[in-house]
Amino acid sequence: MREYLENVRKKMPLVHNITNYVTVNDVANILLACGGSPIMSDEAEDVEDITSVCGGLNINIGTLHRQSIEAMFRAGKKANELGHPVLLDPVGAGASSLRTDTALRLMKELDLCVIRGNISEIKTLALGSGTTKGVDADAADAVTEETLGRSIAFVKRFAKDAGAVIAVTGAIDLVSDGTACCVIRNGRPEMGKITGTGCQLSGMMTAYVTANPEHPLEAAAASVCAMGLAGEIGFRRMQEGDGNATYRNRIIDAIYNLTGEQLEKGADYEIR
Amino acid sequence: MREYLENVRKKMPLVHNITNYVTVNDVANILLACGGSPIMSDEAEDVEDITSVCGGLNINIGTLHRQSIEAMFRAGKKANELGHPVLLDPVGAGASSLRTDTALRLMKELDLCVIRGNISEIKTLALGSGTTKGVDADAADAVTEETLGRSIAFVKRFAKDAGAVIAVTGAIDLVSDGTACCVIRNGRPEMGKITGTGCQLSGMMTAYVTANPEHPLEAAAASVCAMGLAGEIGFRRMQEGDGNATYRNRIIDAIYNLTGEQLEKGADYEIR
Amino acid sequence: MREYLENVRKKMPLVHNITNYVTVNDVANILLACGGSPIMSDEAEDVEDITSVCGGLNINIGTLHRQSIEAMFRAGKKANELGHPVLLDPVGAGASSLRTDTALRLMKELDLCVIRGNISEIKTLALGSGTTKGVDADAADAVTEETLGRSIAFVKRFAKDAGAVIAVTGAIDLVSDGTACCVIRNGRPEMGKITGTGCQLSGMMTAYVTANPEHPLEAAAASVCAMGLAGEIGFRRMQEGDGNATYRNRIIDAIYNLTGEQLEKGADYEIR
Repeated sequence: MREYLENVRKKMPLVHNITNYVTVNDVANILLACGGSPIMSDEAEDVEDITSVCGGLNINIGTLHRQSIEAMFRAGKKANELGHPVLLDPVGAGASSLRTDTALRLMKELDLCVIRGNISEIKTLALGSGTTKGVDADAADAVTEETLGRSIAFVKRFAKDAGAVIAVTGAIDLVSDGTACCVIRNGRPEMGKITGTGCQLSGMMTAYVTANPEHPLEAAAASVCAMGLAGEIGFRRMQEGDGNATYRNRIIDAIYNLTGEQLEKGADYEIR
Repeated sequence: MREYLENVRKKMPLVHNITNYVTVNDVANILLACGGSPIMSDEAEDVEDITSVCGGLNINIGTLHRQSIEAMFRAGKKANELGHPVLLDPVGAGASSLRTDTALRLMKELDLCVIRGNISEIKTLALGSGTTKGVDADAADAVTEETLGRSIAFVKRFAKDAGAVIAVTGAIDLVSDGTACCVIRNGRPEMGKITGTGCQLSGMMTAYVTANPEHPLEAAAASVCAMGLAGEIGFRRMQEGDGNATYRNRIIDAIYNLTGEQLEKGADYEIR
Repeated sequence: MREYLENVRKKMPLVHNITNYVTVNDVANILLACGGSPIMSDEAEDVEDITSVCGGLNINIGTLHRQSIEAMFRAGKKANELGHPVLLDPVGAGASSLRTDTALRLMKELDLCVIRGNISEIKTLALGSGTTKGVDADAADAVTEETLGRSIAFVKRFAKDAGAVIAVTGAIDLVSDGTACCVIRNGRPEMGKITGTGCQLSGMMTAYVTANPEHPLEAAAASVCAMGLAGEIGFRRMQEGDGNATYRNRIIDAIYNLTGEQLEKGADYEIR
């Protein structure tokens, strides 16, 4: 795990983010915290230039606009042309036709390096339709110790079909390239009470896969471990009266201070 | 008061927010803090689907765009069709024709459950025009102990005319359904030095009225008390050198930790 | 320095911001912290009304949209007509044609009071083209003790040509009106690990020049000293485990508590 984190700090990858306006500030700050550098641009006329000066592209459909959809395709095609890794975060896929259709079209027309979402969003993409309730995963879909075997098989198969690393995050996180599946148990349930921990992870994951181009599976898994570990470290620093606003800051702070050694020691994962 | 808060924690209402990009992250975090669940979407093609999976709709005109205006009407009509409560926060009504006209049209074409604003914004809606200076209330309009009788009469009359619960927030808060008026004295003047405490309240109030469909007046008033109380609790936790950025976090944290019992005990209101 | 800060607290200037959605919340909170009052509007149909009720205009091109560009010109022309100071923050000029061209056109068509950017952005405007890497300055362009003489000459000349106060911020900050150049050494390198400290400064600087209309050079320089000093004060309050998220809050908090006396004593500058 250690070297994937350290490569981000060393190479300081510039990441182009086309992301929602809800959590964009936290995405920018966590990218800086992990050692990357963020730039945001979602205007179709601007994105090809911007993605060209960057090393990776993070596409998040959390607040789609007709014009930003155009920007996603133009930026994605340019990034593909340049060989930059492209990550898709299909926020809310399954909750609306526009989100589901846009995510499916992005999968079809772009060469994606990673797709990261919650289990309901990922199932929507795998099945081509869905019933996601809002932006959180359906309880019925949850990856638990009971459903783990089936969930791993599903994620592996979908990774193979999609030709991308698939990262499903939740109580237990699964990251697979179609062959191996990394099962990760870092994190805290209270992270779900902060808006945008998923978006933040997608931003940081883009930096990790950009800085570790030969190892997208390992880099994606390392970023998931880092985020979960930051959630654990941040939670230990919570004091009486603190809540989700302070917790948000403590997690980003923990990413800022996280060392390769800490990640190596604290990462709680197994390969299946 | 207690049961209105507890119903939010129990039912975890999903709230669709069409809101400004300035304070949207805080709105999302306070919705999570109070026990609700936020989703944001302001693209006309997306909003009908999104509002359909939600329980309530929060419309905030803080940063209007031509396209988001269309989205507000489409979402509002769909929410009305489905019987979901719709809240309007007329940020800056009176400061520009576009804001005043849009707010008036939303009032006319939608069936609103609650309208929440500062006194200048609400006067603008009542009079059909206004002279709001920016997004803060004019000192001349302020609800004070001296003007209280007149202000209560004004809010009751406007609530009756508008057929909605009216919530006017400021040093003294007034919430009326046209018959009763709840006069609330929770809160701290320093809350005015944080951007978006009003927007946050509107988001949380939507969760409260959604989780308490039979009691919009009481639920709206309870959310006003909760916000003011959180302002008091958060302020007591401020330390030497802290300012408005930390205060923002402490208020959201206080909402996160607020219990029905605390609200019951701390709510400072009378019915007039 | 003292009176420039105190005029902001006394006059509470209302500042119209057309700014990016990444750092907009922090811009609003720092404007409140310093004693000003923020309003955001980037819809072409709305901006003339909004800028008319304000005292100054802050244009930041961090996330350009076709429609917000139109709004920048309409607001800028109205502000010029009314004699309001207009500040331009050319975020990412040099990184894309759209950004470079828009910034150059804004310079040409508007009467700007101040242009504030990093050295790469400012060089791009001076040369009419550039090679900015993202939104951070190129190391090759950095203002250092070694390049100081040349950098001062460059900034003075560009200020004269542009007919505006030029503020270049970095490890050493330079503020010039074409005649004098204020060289400022406040601040901390860790401020670069927070997204939007530059955007925040631009917002606050607009409040300073609005509240001190006869002294744009001094007011701009005072705001640069205030921001740097807040970075120093905030850094001294950092505790074990804190990172860039907490540092962001501490800086805004420090601006909130900063007095004229502290600024007078802490400002580290010389006139060249």
